[in-house]
Amino acid sequence: MATQFDPPSGTRDLLAADVERRERAFDVIRSVFTRYGFEPLQTPAFERLDVLLGKYGDEGDKLVFKILRRGEHEASGEADLALRYDHTVPLARVAAAYGSRLPSPYKRYALGPVWRAERPGKDRYREFVQCDLDTLGSASPLADAEVLCAHHDAVAGLGIGEFRVELNSRRVLAGLLDVFSVPAALGPGVLITLDKLDKLRPERVTAELVQRGLDPARAVEVVDVMTAPDAADRIRDALKKSDEGSAGLDEVDRILSLVAPQLPPGRIAFTPRLVRGLSYYTGPIWELTAPGVAGSMGGGGRYDHLIEQLGGPDVPATGTSLGIERILSLLPGGGDARPSRLDVAVTVMSGELAGRSFGLAASARAVGLRASVYLGSSGKLSRQLRWASDQGARWCLIYGSAEDEAGAVTVRDMDSGEQTTVPVGDLGGYLARVARSGQADDHQ
Amino acid sequence: MATQFDPPSGTRDLLAADVERRERAFDVIRSVFTRYGFEPLQTPAFERLDVLLGKYGDEGDKLVFKILRRGEHEASGEADLALRYDHTVPLARVAAAYGSRLPSPYKRYALGPVWRAERPGKDRYREFVQCDLDTLGSASPLADAEVLCAHHDAVAGLGIGEFRVELNSRRVLAGLLDVFSVPAALGPGVLITLDKLDKLRPERVTAELVQRGLDPARAVEVVDVMTAPDAADRIRDALKKSDEGSAGLDEVDRILSLVAPQLPPGRIAFTPRLVRGLSYYTGPIWELTAPGVAGSMGGGGRYDHLIEQLGGPDVPATGTSLGIERILSLLPGGGDARPSRLDVAVTVMSGELAGRSFGLAASARAVGLRASVYLGSSGKLSRQLRWASDQGARWCLIYGSAEDEAGAVTVRDMDSGEQTTVPVGDLGGYLARVARSGQADDHQ
Repeated sequence: MATQFDPPSGTRDLLAADVERRERAFDVIRSVFTRYGFEPLQTPAFERLDVLLGKYGDEGDKLVFKILRRGEHEASGEADLALRYDHTVPLARVAAAYGSRLPSPYKRYALGPVWRAERPGKDRYREFVQCDLDTLGSASPLADAEVLCAHHDAVAGLGIGEFRVELNSRRVLAGLLDVFSVPAALGPGVLITLDKLDKLRPERVTAELVQRGLDPARAVEVVDVMTAPDAADRIRDALKKSDEGSAGLDEVDRILSLVAPQLPPGRIAFTPRLVRGLSYYTGPIWELTAPGVAGSMGGGGRYDHLIEQLGGPDVPATGTSLGIERILSLLPGGGDARPSRLDVAVTVMSGELAGRSFGLAASARAVGLRASVYLGSSGKLSRQLRWASDQGARWCLIYGSAEDEAGAVTVRDMDSGEQTTVPVGDLGGYLARVARSGQADDHQ
Repeated sequence: MATQFDPPSGTRDLLAADVERRERAFDVIRSVFTRYGFEPLQTPAFERLDVLLGKYGDEGDKLVFKILRRGEHEASGEADLALRYDHTVPLARVAAAYGSRLPSPYKRYALGPVWRAERPGKDRYREFVQCDLDTLGSASPLADAEVLCAHHDAVAGLGIGEFRVELNSRRVLAGLLDVFSVPAALGPGVLITLDKLDKLRPERVTAELVQRGLDPARAVEVVDVMTAPDAADRIRDALKKSDEGSAGLDEVDRILSLVAPQLPPGRIAFTPRLVRGLSYYTGPIWELTAPGVAGSMGGGGRYDHLIEQLGGPDVPATGTSLGIERILSLLPGGGDARPSRLDVAVTVMSGELAGRSFGLAASARAVGLRASVYLGSSGKLSRQLRWASDQGARWCLIYGSAEDEAGAVTVRDMDSGEQTTVPVGDLGGYLARVARSGQADDHQ
C-alpha cells in the first residue's frame, strides 16, 4: 500500500544493494563502450520545452514531464522546461550547438535517467535509465557494425549467456511490400502487424492483416513465407525480384559479414520479420532478444535523417539503445544482491579509549579495507560483537583496558572466532597480510 | 551569446573531457566513503510537491522547480511534483518509509544532481551535483568525527593540497552570546554578522552589529576578542563562565582529540567565529576552506532534530556536504583536461578488406585496448593516418592488399613513426606486450 513516505508513483528509492548492482553493470557497459572508442556525453535533466515538444508525436508529448515557469510567471500555469524524454533529442541539440567542434565522426554514449509519465506497472517506471550508443557523421556499414558489436559485447559482458541478435534492413522491408504487391497505403500498417509474429499465433496475424485491408489470399501467403522454417531463404529468393529488396539484402549481408565473425556461432541471424520503429530508420535495423523473455534487450539501426528532423545538422547516423532496466532484471542473482559490507569492525570499550579505536579504524582504511568504529551507546562486548556480525565484518578489533596496557589490539576472525593479539603499530601490516591471504583462498 | 541550441539557462552540456574528469573525482569520493563503511542511496529526481514545500523557507520554496500535473489536470496549471532541491529531505523521507529496515546507525552517502532556480552566474548553476554524507541514529561524537574525517580524506584524496578544517560547536556560539550578554532576541542576527569576519573588515562587522541593535561598546569588545591573534585561547577563557559554553568547549575538544591525530599537523583548528547554517545545527559544526579561495569546500555538523522536522523519525543525526562543484573547479588541471582517446586506430584500405580491419580492432579490444576502425569515406592512407593522429592513437594498424597476401598487419608506432610487420594471429599478443612495456616506460 502506498504511504505518504513512498517515492512518487513510478519512481524508486535505490538502497545500497540496488545501487551497487546497477553501478557494477554500468561500469561494465561504460568500459565496453570506451574500448570501442565511444566517449561520454551528459546533457541536463531538462530541456527547453520547445526543444522537446513535437518530437515524439502527440502521444509522446502527453508523456513529457513539464516544468512550471518560476517567479512572477508561476501563476500563469505555463511550462517553459521539460524533463529529458530520451537521449536522442539532446544529442541532436548538442550536434547543432557544437557543430564542427565535435570530433567527426562523433561517437558518443549517454547513460542516464529519462522521464516519461507512462502508467506505472511491473518493470515500467516513470524514471528509468536509458543507455544509448550513437555514431554521427559516418555512412559506413562499419559504423553500424561497430555500434551493434558494442551493444552485443556489453550484454555479453554483463553475464547474459543466451541471447540472439536479429538483423534486418528497412530496405528489405520495403522490398517485401514491393514483392507481395502490398498497396503503398497499407505498407506501414502491414509491417506493424508482421512485427507481432514473435508474439501472436500466425492465424491471428493473418486475421489482423485482412482487417487492415490486405487481400486474404495475399495475407495467408505473406504469413506462410514469414513463418516457414526456411523463411530467411525463401524471402532471400523472393527479394531478388525487387531492386530495393536486393539492395536491402546486400546491406544485411554486408553487416553479417562484418559482425558474425566477431560473435559466437549462431548468435546473429537475418530476421526478415523484424520491423522496429519503422518511422525513422533508413537502413539496417537490429534487436537483441533472449529466448523465453518477452520484449527485447534493446536494439537500433541506421537513421540518416532523424538528427536533422530533430533540429540538428543533416548527418548520417546510426545507433543502438540498450534496454537497461530489462537487462538488469535478467542479470543472475538480480533479486537478492547484498550490499558490500565492512571488512573491519572496531569495538569501542569506553569513552576514554574511543580515540584509540578511531585510530585503529584509520589504520585498517590506510591499507584499503572498509572499516568503521561502533557508533552505538552500548559498552557491552557481546552487543558490539553482534553489531560486527550484522555488518558482515571479516574481522573485529577489540581494544579494552588490557589491550591498552599491552599496547596491542585483539583481532577476532569473525568466521572462525579465533583471536590474535597484534601490536598496535603492526596492525595495518597484519590486516593487509590476512586480507591478501583471504583473497588468495577465495581464488583457489 | 545564447543560441536556440544552448542548454537551458544555468545548465551545462558535459562533453567527454568534463564527464571523465568529474567521474574520476566521483570515483575517488565514493571509494573514500565506502572505506568508511558508508553505503549509497539514490532517490528519484523528483519528489511529491508537498514533501518539498515548506522545508527550505519562503526563499527556498521560490527556487524549487515545480512539475506541472499531467493529462486532464495539465490545464489546471498546478504542480504536483518538484525536482529534488537537496539530498536531506529525501533522506528524511526514506528514513520514515523504511524505518527499522534500514541499518542502524544508517550511514549513507548521496552523490547526484539537485536543481535550484537560482539566478545563474559564474560557478553558480541551476543543475549541480551535491554530495552528502550522513549518519542517522548515533549520538556519539565518534559519528561526527567519522563524517568529518571522511570529508577530509575525500578532499585530500582528490589532490587538493592546502586546506583547513574549521571546527566549532553550536553550543560554543550559545555560550558566547551568554558571556557577552547579547540579548536573546539579537542572538541569531549577531551570529550571522560574526560569520562574516572571514570576508569583511572588523570595522564593517562592528558597524553591522551596532546596526542590529547591539550596544556599541559590546560590539567592539566582541569583534576585538574574535579577531585577536589568540582569539581561540581568549574565547576558551571567556567561555568558562558559561555552562553552555563549557559544554560546547568539551564537545569541540572531544572531536579535536578524535580527529586531529588522523590529520596532518595544523590541519584542523577550533574556530569560534564559524557559524554555518545556525538554524538547525545542534552540536559540533565544521567547514573546509582553502587559503585564498572564497567560499568553502563544504562542511556540516550535528543536527539532532532536523530529520524529524523534515517528516522523518526522531533520530540523532550528523552529516557533511561536499561543495563538489567548488572542489572540481579547484582541482589541478581542471580547465584543460583532455578526454582519453584511442590506443589503436585501424585503417580501412578497401571495402573488401573492411572486415579484416574490423576484426583487427576486435583483437586489440580483446587485450583491453581502446580501438576503432576508420569510419570515413577516404581510401587514402595519408588521410587515415591524420585521423589516427587526431584520435591520439598510440598505434595505427594498416591492412592493405600487401598485408592481406602476407597474412600480416603493419603496426605503426604513432610517436616514432616506426612500422613493424606482425602476423595477424599474433596481433593481440604483440599489442599487449608493447602496451605493457609502454606503461613500464611511463612509470620510470
